[in-house]
Amino acid sequence: MSIVVVGSIAYDTVITPYGRREQTLGGAATFFSVAASYFCPVQVVGVVGEDFSDEDVEVFSARGIDTQGIARRPGKSFRWGGEYSWNLNERETLFTELNVFEEFDPELPPAYRTTPHVFLANIAPGLQLSVLEQVESPRLVALDTMNYWIEGDRDALAEVLKRVDILVINDEEARQLADEYNLVKAAEAVLSMGPTAVVIKRGEHGATAFLGDEIFNVPGFPLRDLADPTGAGDTFAGGFMGHLARHGDHGPEGLRRAIVAGSVMASFCVEAFSLDGITNLDEDQIAARYRAFQALTRFGDL
Amino acid sequence: MSIVVVGSIAYDTVITPYGRREQTLGGAATFFSVAASYFCPVQVVGVVGEDFSDEDVEVFSARGIDTQGIARRPGKSFRWGGEYSWNLNERETLFTELNVFEEFDPELPPAYRTTPHVFLANIAPGLQLSVLEQVESPRLVALDTMNYWIEGDRDALAEVLKRVDILVINDEEARQLADEYNLVKAAEAVLSMGPTAVVIKRGEHGATAFLGDEIFNVPGFPLRDLADPTGAGDTFAGGFMGHLARHGDHGPEGLRRAIVAGSVMASFCVEAFSLDGITNLDEDQIAARYRAFQALTRFGDL
Repeated sequence: MSIVVVGSIAYDTVITPYGRREQTLGGAATFFSVAASYFCPVQVVGVVGEDFSDEDVEVFSARGIDTQGIARRPGKSFRWGGEYSWNLNERETLFTELNVFEEFDPELPPAYRTTPHVFLANIAPGLQLSVLEQVESPRLVALDTMNYWIEGDRDALAEVLKRVDILVINDEEARQLADEYNLVKAAEAVLSMGPTAVVIKRGEHGATAFLGDEIFNVPGFPLRDLADPTGAGDTFAGGFMGHLARHGDHGPEGLRRAIVAGSVMASFCVEAFSLDGITNLDEDQIAARYRAFQALTRFGDL
Repeated sequence: MSIVVVGSIAYDTVITPYGRREQTLGGAATFFSVAASYFCPVQVVGVVGEDFSDEDVEVFSARGIDTQGIARRPGKSFRWGGEYSWNLNERETLFTELNVFEEFDPELPPAYRTTPHVFLANIAPGLQLSVLEQVESPRLVALDTMNYWIEGDRDALAEVLKRVDILVINDEEARQLADEYNLVKAAEAVLSMGPTAVVIKRGEHGATAFLGDEIFNVPGFPLRDLADPTGAGDTFAGGFMGHLARHGDHGPEGLRRAIVAGSVMASFCVEAFSLDGITNLDEDQIAARYRAFQALTRFGDL
């Protein structure tokens, strides 16, 4: 089954201790859709400017991603720049130029409106809601958000959360949304807002998911060499949703496997700059990394 | 099979957001031996002052721990005070009064010298070495240390590391010892110093172990209520070594299970102040928490 994703498509400038990239392809919808494309058909909704290159359109097409939902508008594409600390654990935003993204008003092509899986990447809650109103009875809706909307647009966010099955956010956002530091209590508070599952991304420490009555944890993959964490969270979400869409098991067992699939994709993402770590994978590499996660976490009875 | 542990026995003053305890029983050897006592016979080597109460001796005796290695010396017992930050992630030392611990010169009773498992808790590397010289061909030796010795007594530490099978330290210490931030590379560097395995404690994020060619990760247990993290690392080490001594499998599979057993004990420790979380457990509670770790981490094939 297929997925539709709505979110940013951007040109990123990224500085890490391991190098620098100027105006390289990025954005939440980009990382998400490339990661998900290894598991199922993907449709992407976003906006780019006149500067968006054919080569960058080809990054989507080469992965079989349906790009008819990418609108091209007069002006420049969304640009973002960030610089990471020496240990990659902190990030300073150097600049944010919304450009055509400022007037983004997502419109789903007719072919996207019956797509069963929907991922609402981090955009204004009002826009997320407008997308939900364009899709007909989706099987599964998941959503990402950020501190900016939690602080500044909480009512609209609460509205859209009521219509969402799975919330995928990071630990700080979960704590802020729930106004509770303890992650178990924060997750319980978030689950009372509407979603039936919340997947909390913890960066290098992996992810912890609250799946109804069950809690599931997957570690970050121990890597010798990291290059660039940009997009890792969106890549995680793409692998996660892609796996769910492919297998159609939305119960706790299916969610567990999908969370590991997301972690696999995120681990490839951070090993290289921009999308380089996830554009040229094959199924064997993905399966091998998944087995490495199994080897990393398995243990026998007491 | 039995274990001998050498380390501090202290009176702690602990302040956390959840309460305050004055002059309560603590110390690395104390937490370690109580945790290990659920798995195997334990012998403890330490020093206390004239102020050490019969009630506190009884904490050891009630768990069947052999206390003939606890020397009583003129003066006061080691005292330590610490205050934790609001989220328990940082700790400020309020005072350290070494008292009788300053002249600690561990001497093993004859009955301890053929004990097959040895845990050298965090004391001066020179003292750790002197303990090793008193034991006859131990089957397994593990060691903890801290930044103070890594900075100030590196040569002696290097000497004792050559004679140790397993190093149990926290992530900051591993990075400092290896002078390398990346945990995979840091672990490789530490393994080249002598130990065949290194178990890296990561606080609320659990533990990552480098077992020869294998890497194993266990998460911290998601708890709704934490009271006091004091002693959690020593409690982890006690459960870990206790499980190893009980089952005698020192290969990667045995180490994995032992690391989870240590994590189980540490999760009980932080739920209450001082030793309260680990003095009155039964086997069923330990087995149930172990199964909860299995439920927390299991997932199916891709």
